[in-house]
Amino acid sequence: MTYCIAVSVKEGLVLTSDSRTNAGIDNVSVHCKMHVIQTCEDRKIVLLSAGNLATTQAVLDQLRRDIKERAETNLNTMQYLSEAAEYLGHVSLDKQHRHANSGQNGFFPAATFLLAGQIGAEPHGAYLVYPEGNYITTSDHTPYLQIGENKYGKPVLDRILKIDTPLEEAALCSLISMDSTIRSNVSVGPPVDILIYHRDSFELNEYYRFQEGDDYLMQLRRIWQEKLSDAFAALPRIDKQEAKDFPVLDH
Amino acid sequence: MTYCIAVSVKEGLVLTSDSRTNAGIDNVSVHCKMHVIQTCEDRKIVLLSAGNLATTQAVLDQLRRDIKERAETNLNTMQYLSEAAEYLGHVSLDKQHRHANSGQNGFFPAATFLLAGQIGAEPHGAYLVYPEGNYITTSDHTPYLQIGENKYGKPVLDRILKIDTPLEEAALCSLISMDSTIRSNVSVGPPVDILIYHRDSFELNEYYRFQEGDDYLMQLRRIWQEKLSDAFAALPRIDKQEAKDFPVLDH
Repeated sequence: MTYCIAVSVKEGLVLTSDSRTNAGIDNVSVHCKMHVIQTCEDRKIVLLSAGNLATTQAVLDQLRRDIKERAETNLNTMQYLSEAAEYLGHVSLDKQHRHANSGQNGFFPAATFLLAGQIGAEPHGAYLVYPEGNYITTSDHTPYLQIGENKYGKPVLDRILKIDTPLEEAALCSLISMDSTIRSNVSVGPPVDILIYHRDSFELNEYYRFQEGDDYLMQLRRIWQEKLSDAFAALPRIDKQEAKDFPVLDH
Repeated sequence: MTYCIAVSVKEGLVLTSDSRTNAGIDNVSVHCKMHVIQTCEDRKIVLLSAGNLATTQAVLDQLRRDIKERAETNLNTMQYLSEAAEYLGHVSLDKQHRHANSGQNGFFPAATFLLAGQIGAEPHGAYLVYPEGNYITTSDHTPYLQIGENKYGKPVLDRILKIDTPLEEAALCSLISMDSTIRSNVSVGPPVDILIYHRDSFELNEYYRFQEGDDYLMQLRRIWQEKLSDAFAALPRIDKQEAKDFPVLDH
């Protein structure tokens, strides 16, 4: 399994991914799921991936080859991020189809991607590209997208993230969301990669990798845990005056 | 969908359920998912249900009929909660099988139950009864069970609940877990039922029903939201000295 988040707020982007890959529960390894494709200077494009690792790698290889060979359509020819998302969906579908009829039972070549970045004078943004090749983007009301094991870490994103949340806070929120997921699902695990992109900067120089047991991550986890316990202690208790007998029906 | 939680801590039990039932997204109604079966005075047994509503009701009817008709096996003849869980699994499987081959496409008669309570001098406890008829119980390390839409509300339970958490705090934690789930999944909704059972009391007199827009629930939601925001503000920021360039590989 995998968990990746792309937050797109006014100030820019926060991209977060775990690194645990498994082919069956007895074959677990570490693969970075955050990928930057080297493009020309007027654009930055980052991919986060979930799903079949072979499909993911085949897609990344194709995107890089298309640039190198100056294919008619490649990430350098795009004017809009939505075009890049469409192209990624097309390449992904093609790679999946090549192996879909291999005749192996229980083989799922599906892969899902988050594509985020900025092209020229266009606004920055993030797209979720489904295995079917279609895509969605964020909105002012829901300024984030998730792929992989998305449920455990969703409530904290829903509660905290707004379109005008500062990047620093969005990064903390993403780390807490990742930590909740790592605690609840053993198939999601460190190292955790996080990349902060300030809009219009065209720089990818605020990248962090947190290894298992990283001091800062441990501190974050401990303080968050303490603050949650404090928050609980401060919650208004249920008014016992309102207690009733359970209405037992006897049929 | 549904979301129900059974917490079993040293002091007793906290049982929580939502009330939204749907047969397709265009057929949503309100059904209480917390059921008390009238038994003899040396025991209290409460059921929480998720899944097919017809199966659930058929199972409840059968349990009540078995008591009324003094069947050889009924909830009054059990000496242990685990026996009751096994009996419930047996009845559930029987009811599901009656309709499994009805020939309707997309028909799933499966139902899942939480059974909690106390019998005589035996300790109180909670059991999750699967549609397959087998069951699991809680442990000191994981003093809760969930059925239905369990993922959104799991992190807060994992972070707060311990075997010696007081009942009052376990109830607050369950309400926050329910609130997180209601926010994230529209198929889970109020009224929210919560029943607190003090061990060895054999009383079900601490029952609360919170309607949509209930003052207390709104206050709880608001204060929790504020406290979470405060907690975020107090988290240690990522050390920008640690920022690196993203290691772009150019193949």
